[in-house]
Amino acid sequence: MSSEELAYIAGFLDGDGCVMAQLVRRKDYIYGYQIRTSVVFYQKSRNQWILQWLKDRINIGYIRHRKDGMTEYSIVGLREVVSVLNILLPYLRLKKELAEQVIRLIGEHPKRMTPGKLIRMSKLVDATAQFNYSKKRTNTSKTVRAYLENINLIPVETEA
Amino acid sequence: MSSEELAYIAGFLDGDGCVMAQLVRRKDYIYGYQIRTSVVFYQKSRNQWILQWLKDRINIGYIRHRKDGMTEYSIVGLREVVSVLNILLPYLRLKKELAEQVIRLIGEHPKRMTPGKLIRMSKLVDATAQFNYSKKRTNTSKTVRAYLENINLIPVETEA
Repeated sequence: MSSEELAYIAGFLDGDGCVMAQLVRRKDYIYGYQIRTSVVFYQKSRNQWILQWLKDRINIGYIRHRKDGMTEYSIVGLREVVSVLNILLPYLRLKKELAEQVIRLIGEHPKRMTPGKLIRMSKLVDATAQFNYSKKRTNTSKTVRAYLENINLIPVETEA
Repeated sequence: MSSEELAYIAGFLDGDGCVMAQLVRRKDYIYGYQIRTSVVFYQKSRNQWILQWLKDRINIGYIRHRKDGMTEYSIVGLREVVSVLNILLPYLRLKKELAEQVIRLIGEHPKRMTPGKLIRMSKLVDATAQFNYSKKRTNTSKTVRAYLENINLIPVETEA
């Protein structure tokens, strides 16, 4: 991609897109939670061709038509998100700091998860949440800690 | 400005901004309506620094803090808007066609307005409205025509 194309996409993402790290409950995961990262672009469905253009340039992710007349282009996954954020990083402005934090978080994601590492990762996820405006985060590092305590994978935290 | 900066701003405008032509009722205008063109960027007020950055690059327009926690950076005026759209046009994608129509409309704006020219201009304004999603356009070429008919500046249109 040309630097103008990358700069355009970075501006589009800064204006209208979303960079996220989330804790997702997974019943099939031994420690109960997955770290999910994503980059999402939104447009009214009548403008979905611009999302198709973005997808053609970026070459990963998928497009989904929502029932409310919006279309989303999402890139989900640790490797996928880190590759997109790395190429856009030099051009990002508004979401640059968030992107840097998400890149760092992905870099610290262990190949083999442990309860302690999951707690550490989930705190990094908490730190990225301040950049977005989700009022109802259901899963935080506290939820993860409580879950791990509950299944006796970590000792119950006591007040110092 | 560098081509990367222009491409970034074009991406930002495509993602989150607004390009508009409107018919504005003006009681002090002999023909009752003004053609107003504008380019607007919006952000939550906590991100207003990016709007200040845009304003520093573009060098015209003003920033306004709304009471609902949003901040707007607006460029209003025929000369102002045509100059901004002209520099961004090579980099715009989603709003390119709209920007071209608004540039054309500004180019056709007469120095001396006449009732006939105002009708023609207001039809060009109508044509740009399809690109935006304003459900409640109060002023259209029909409103302008009715006004001009009412003050006897043009003959009442009869069905052919």
